[in-house]
Amino acid sequence: MSFTESPTRELGPDECWALLRAEEMGRLAYHLVDEVHVVPINYAVDDGELLFRTTAGNKLLAAALGSEVALEIDWHEDDRAWSVLARGRLRVLDEVEEHRLDGLSLRPWVPTLKYDVVGLRPTAITGRAFDRGACT
Amino acid sequence: MSFTESPTRELGPDECWALLRAEEMGRLAYHLVDEVHVVPINYAVDDGELLFRTTAGNKLLAAALGSEVALEIDWHEDDRAWSVLARGRLRVLDEVEEHRLDGLSLRPWVPTLKYDVVGLRPTAITGRAFDRGACT
Repeated sequence: MSFTESPTRELGPDECWALLRAEEMGRLAYHLVDEVHVVPINYAVDDGELLFRTTAGNKLLAAALGSEVALEIDWHEDDRAWSVLARGRLRVLDEVEEHRLDGLSLRPWVPTLKYDVVGLRPTAITGRAFDRGACT
Repeated sequence: MSFTESPTRELGPDECWALLRAEEMGRLAYHLVDEVHVVPINYAVDDGELLFRTTAGNKLLAAALGSEVALEIDWHEDDRAWSVLARGRLRVLDEVEEHRLDGLSLRPWVPTLKYDVVGLRPTAITGRAFDRGACT
Protein backbone atom coordinates (compact mmCIF):
# COMPACT_ATOMS: atom_id res chain seq x y z
CA MET A 1 0.00 0.00 0.00
CA SER A 2 1.51 3.33 -0.99
CA PHE A 3 1.03 6.60 0.82
CA THR A 4 1.07 10.08 -0.55
CA GLU A 5 2.39 13.02 1.44
CA SER A 6 -1.06 13.57 2.87
CA PRO A 7 -1.45 11.68 6.13
CA THR A 8 -4.81 10.32 4.95
CA ARG A 9 -5.71 8.63 1.70
CA GLU A 10 -9.17 7.55 0.60
CA LEU A 11 -9.32 3.93 -0.50
CA GLY A 12 -11.19 2.98 -3.65
CA PRO A 13 -13.92 0.31 -3.76
CA ASP A 14 -11.57 -2.35 -5.14
CA GLU A 15 -9.06 -1.74 -2.36
CA CYS A 16 -11.84 -1.86 0.25
CA TRP A 17 -13.16 -5.17 -1.11
CA ALA A 18 -9.66 -6.65 -1.19
CA LEU A 19 -9.21 -5.76 2.47
CA LEU A 20 -12.65 -7.10 3.35
CA ARG A 21 -11.82 -10.40 1.64
CA ALA A 22 -8.44 -10.62 3.37
CA GLU A 23 -9.81 -10.11 6.89
CA GLU A 24 -12.23 -12.26 8.81
CA MET A 25 -13.09 -10.26 11.93
CA GLY A 26 -14.82 -6.93 12.18
CA ARG A 27 -17.18 -4.95 14.36
CA LEU A 28 -20.85 -4.70 13.51
CA ALA A 29 -22.47 -1.47 14.68
CA TYR A 30 -26.20 -0.86 14.71
CA HIS A 31 -28.62 1.57 16.23
CA LEU A 32 -31.61 0.56 18.32
CA VAL A 33 -33.91 2.83 20.30
CA ASP A 34 -31.37 5.64 20.69
CA GLU A 35 -28.57 3.27 21.62
CA VAL A 36 -25.59 2.38 19.47
CA HIS A 37 -24.48 -1.23 19.74
CA VAL A 38 -21.15 -2.64 18.59
CA VAL A 39 -20.32 -6.34 18.54
CA PRO A 40 -17.16 -8.06 17.33
CA ILE A 41 -18.09 -10.58 14.68
CA ASN A 42 -16.47 -12.95 12.23
CA TYR A 43 -17.58 -12.66 8.65
CA ALA A 44 -16.95 -14.12 5.23
CA VAL A 45 -17.33 -12.50 1.82
CA ASP A 46 -19.40 -14.29 -0.80
CA ASP A 47 -20.59 -12.83 -4.06
CA GLY A 48 -20.43 -9.23 -2.91
CA GLU A 49 -22.20 -9.94 0.36
CA LEU A 50 -20.82 -10.10 3.91
CA LEU A 51 -22.11 -13.18 5.73
CA PHE A 52 -22.24 -13.70 9.51
CA ARG A 53 -23.41 -16.42 11.84
CA THR A 54 -25.44 -15.25 14.81
CA THR A 55 -26.90 -17.24 17.66
CA ALA A 56 -30.42 -18.22 16.67
CA GLY A 57 -32.89 -15.94 18.39
CA ASN A 58 -30.41 -13.15 19.12
CA LYS A 59 -32.97 -10.54 20.09
CA LEU A 60 -30.79 -7.48 19.62
CA LEU A 61 -29.64 -8.46 16.20
CA ALA A 62 -33.13 -9.54 15.21
CA ALA A 63 -34.34 -6.06 16.03
CA ALA A 64 -31.63 -4.63 13.81
CA LEU A 65 -32.74 -6.61 10.79
CA GLY A 66 -33.76 -4.35 7.99
CA SER A 67 -32.14 -1.31 9.57
CA GLU A 68 -29.01 0.48 8.52
CA VAL A 69 -25.88 -1.09 10.02
CA ALA A 70 -22.14 -0.81 9.46
CA LEU A 71 -19.33 -3.33 9.54
CA GLU A 72 -15.92 -1.87 10.30
CA ILE A 73 -12.53 -3.50 9.90
CA ASP A 74 -9.18 -1.94 10.64
CA TRP A 75 -5.50 -2.66 10.99
CA HIS A 76 -2.58 -0.72 12.35
CA GLU A 77 1.08 -0.92 13.07
CA ASP A 78 3.39 1.77 14.40
CA ASP A 79 3.37 4.11 11.44
CA ARG A 80 0.57 2.91 9.18
CA ALA A 81 -3.08 2.06 9.56
CA TRP A 82 -6.24 1.64 7.58
CA SER A 83 -9.95 1.22 8.21
CA VAL A 84 -12.85 0.17 5.99
CA LEU A 85 -16.55 0.70 6.64
CA ALA A 86 -19.29 -1.21 4.80
CA ARG A 87 -22.79 0.11 5.30
CA GLY A 88 -26.11 -1.48 4.39
CA ARG A 89 -29.09 -3.40 5.69
CA LEU A 90 -29.08 -6.82 7.31
CA ARG A 91 -31.17 -9.74 6.14
CA VAL A 92 -31.49 -13.34 7.31
CA LEU A 93 -30.65 -15.95 4.71
CA ASP A 94 -33.19 -18.71 4.27
CA GLU A 95 -32.32 -22.39 4.41
CA VAL A 96 -31.87 -22.59 0.67
CA GLU A 97 -29.21 -19.90 0.77
CA GLU A 98 -27.40 -21.09 3.88
CA HIS A 99 -25.36 -23.50 1.75
CA ARG A 100 -23.38 -20.46 0.66
CA LEU A 101 -21.44 -20.80 3.89
CA ASP A 102 -20.22 -24.26 2.91
CA GLY A 103 -16.53 -24.08 2.32
CA LEU A 104 -16.22 -20.54 3.63
CA SER A 105 -14.11 -19.96 6.71
CA LEU A 106 -16.53 -18.46 9.18
CA ARG A 107 -16.02 -19.04 12.84
CA PRO A 108 -18.56 -17.65 15.32
CA TRP A 109 -17.45 -15.79 18.45
CA VAL A 110 -19.75 -17.82 20.64
CA PRO A 111 -19.98 -21.53 19.94
CA THR A 112 -23.56 -22.72 20.08
CA LEU A 113 -25.72 -25.34 18.47
CA LYS A 114 -27.96 -23.28 16.30
CA TYR A 115 -27.19 -20.29 14.15
CA ASP A 116 -28.90 -17.90 11.85
CA VAL A 117 -26.98 -16.78 8.83
CA VAL A 118 -27.19 -13.05 8.25
CA GLY A 119 -26.15 -11.17 5.16
CA LEU A 120 -25.12 -7.58 4.57
CA ARG A 121 -24.89 -6.48 0.95
CA PRO A 122 -23.18 -3.09 1.26
CA THR A 123 -24.78 -0.07 -0.33
CA ALA A 124 -21.75 2.05 0.51
CA ILE A 125 -18.13 1.14 1.21
CA THR A 126 -15.54 3.66 2.30
CA GLY A 127 -11.99 3.27 3.47
CA ARG A 128 -9.05 5.36 4.55
CA ALA A 129 -5.35 4.68 4.90
CA PHE A 130 -3.40 6.68 7.44
CA ASP A 131 0.27 7.51 7.46
CA ARG A 132 0.96 7.85 11.15
CA GLY A 133 4.65 8.43 10.82
CA ALA A 134 4.42 12.13 11.45
CA CYS A 135 3.29 11.62 15.00
CA THR A 136 5.79 9.06 16.21
CA MET B 1 -9.01 -14.22 33.22
CA SER B 2 -10.92 -17.33 34.22
CA PHE B 3 -13.77 -18.88 32.29
CA THR B 4 -16.69 -20.89 33.53
CA GLU B 5 -18.15 -23.77 31.58
CA SER B 6 -20.50 -21.38 29.85
CA PRO B 7 -18.98 -20.11 26.62
CA THR B 8 -19.90 -16.54 27.54
CA ARG B 9 -19.32 -14.69 30.78
CA GLU B 10 -20.50 -11.19 31.62
CA LEU B 11 -17.72 -8.93 32.86
CA GLY B 12 -18.29 -6.72 35.88
CA PRO B 13 -17.68 -2.96 35.87
CA ASP B 14 -14.27 -3.27 37.56
CA GLU B 15 -13.11 -5.78 34.96
CA CYS B 16 -14.39 -3.56 32.15
CA TRP B 17 -12.56 -0.52 33.53
CA ALA B 18 -9.35 -2.50 33.97
CA LEU B 19 -9.52 -3.55 30.32
CA LEU B 20 -10.33 0.00 29.20
CA ARG B 21 -7.30 1.29 31.12
CA ALA B 22 -5.04 -1.41 29.68
CA GLU B 23 -5.95 -0.75 26.04
CA GLU B 24 -5.44 2.39 24.02
CA MET B 25 -7.30 1.79 20.74
CA GLY B 26 -11.01 1.28 20.23
CA ARG B 27 -13.78 1.97 17.78
CA LEU B 28 -16.14 4.85 18.31
CA ALA B 29 -19.62 4.25 16.88
CA TYR B 30 -22.25 6.94 16.49
CA HIS B 31 -25.50 7.43 14.68
CA LEU B 32 -26.22 10.37 12.39
CA VAL B 33 -29.22 10.86 10.15
CA ASP B 34 -30.03 7.14 9.83
CA GLU B 35 -26.42 6.19 9.25
CA VAL B 36 -24.15 4.38 11.67
CA HIS B 37 -20.54 5.54 11.65
CA VAL B 38 -17.59 3.70 13.14
CA VAL B 39 -14.09 5.15 13.42
CA PRO B 40 -10.98 3.62 14.96
CA ILE B 41 -9.69 5.94 17.63
CA ASN B 42 -7.01 6.10 20.31
CA TYR B 43 -8.18 7.00 23.77
CA ALA B 44 -6.91 7.47 27.29
CA VAL B 45 -8.72 6.98 30.58
CA ASP B 46 -8.67 9.80 33.08
CA ASP B 47 -10.81 10.08 36.17
CA GLY B 48 -13.57 7.83 34.88
CA GLU B 49 -13.73 9.54 31.50
CA LEU B 50 -12.52 8.35 28.09
CA LEU B 51 -10.59 11.10 26.31
CA PHE B 52 -9.93 11.34 22.56
CA ARG B 53 -8.19 13.77 20.26
CA THR B 54 -10.06 14.62 17.08
CA THR B 55 -9.05 16.82 14.20
CA ALA B 56 -10.34 20.29 14.93
CA GLY B 57 -13.47 20.91 12.91
CA ASN B 58 -14.26 17.25 12.27
CA LYS B 59 -17.79 17.79 10.98
CA LEU B 60 -19.08 14.29 11.50
CA LEU B 61 -17.90 14.05 15.05
CA ALA B 62 -19.09 17.56 15.78
CA ALA B 63 -22.56 16.51 14.73
CA ALA B 64 -22.35 13.56 17.09
CA LEU B 65 -21.61 15.75 20.10
CA GLY B 66 -24.29 15.40 22.70
CA SER B 67 -25.70 12.27 21.13
CA GLU B 68 -25.46 8.72 22.35
CA VAL B 69 -22.25 7.02 21.20
CA ALA B 70 -20.41 3.83 22.05
CA LEU B 71 -16.73 2.99 22.33
CA GLU B 72 -15.90 -0.66 21.81
CA ILE B 73 -12.65 -2.47 22.54
CA ASP B 74 -11.95 -6.14 22.03
CA TRP B 75 -9.22 -8.74 22.03
CA HIS B 76 -9.02 -12.31 20.83
CA GLU B 77 -6.71 -15.21 20.42
CA ASP B 78 -7.49 -18.69 19.17
CA ASP B 79 -9.65 -19.89 22.02
CA ARG B 80 -10.45 -16.81 24.09
CA ALA B 81 -11.80 -13.37 23.45
CA TRP B 82 -13.44 -10.46 25.18
CA SER B 83 -15.17 -7.23 24.24
CA VAL B 84 -16.16 -4.17 26.25
CA LEU B 85 -18.66 -1.49 25.27
CA ALA B 86 -18.82 1.93 26.94
CA ARG B 87 -21.85 4.02 26.10
CA GLY B 88 -22.54 7.67 26.80
CA ARG B 89 -22.56 11.16 25.34
CA LEU B 90 -19.64 13.06 23.88
CA ARG B 91 -18.55 16.51 24.99
CA VAL B 92 -15.71 18.78 23.95
CA LEU B 93 -13.31 19.72 26.73
CA ASP B 94 -12.56 23.39 27.06
CA GLU B 95 -9.04 24.78 27.16
CA VAL B 96 -8.95 24.71 30.92
CA GLU B 97 -9.61 20.99 30.93
CA GLU B 98 -7.34 20.05 28.05
CA HIS B 99 -4.38 19.89 30.43
CA ARG B 100 -5.82 16.57 31.56
CA LEU B 101 -4.15 15.04 28.52
CA ASP B 102 -0.71 16.09 29.75
CA GLY B 103 1.22 12.98 30.64
CA LEU B 104 -1.40 10.63 29.21
CA SER B 105 -0.40 8.43 26.30
CA LEU B 106 -2.80 9.45 23.58
CA ARG B 107 -1.75 9.20 19.98
CA PRO B 108 -4.13 10.36 17.27
CA TRP B 109 -4.75 8.26 14.16
CA VAL B 110 -4.24 11.23 11.89
CA PRO B 111 -1.41 13.59 12.72
CA THR B 112 -2.48 17.16 12.33
CA LEU B 113 -1.70 20.50 13.86
CA LYS B 114 -4.85 21.24 15.73
CA TYR B 115 -7.03 18.98 17.81
CA ASP B 116 -10.14 19.09 19.84
CA VAL B 117 -10.18 17.01 22.97
CA VAL B 118 -13.41 15.06 23.36
CA GLY B 119 -14.60 13.25 26.45
CA LEU B 120 -16.98 10.37 26.98
CA ARG B 121 -18.05 9.70 30.55
CA PRO B 122 -19.80 6.36 30.23
CA THR B 123 -23.31 5.99 31.55
CA ALA B 124 -23.23 2.25 30.87
CA ILE B 125 -20.37 -0.20 30.52
CA THR B 126 -20.85 -3.81 29.55
CA GLY B 127 -18.41 -6.54 28.70
CA ARG B 128 -18.32 -10.18 27.79
CA ALA B 129 -15.64 -12.83 27.77
CA PHE B 130 -15.93 -15.68 25.32
CA ASP B 131 -14.52 -19.16 25.59
CA ARG B 132 -14.13 -20.08 21.95
CA GLY B 133 -12.49 -23.43 22.60
CA ALA B 134 -15.59 -25.42 21.84
CA CYS B 135 -15.53 -24.42 18.20
CA THR B 136 -11.90 -24.97 17.35
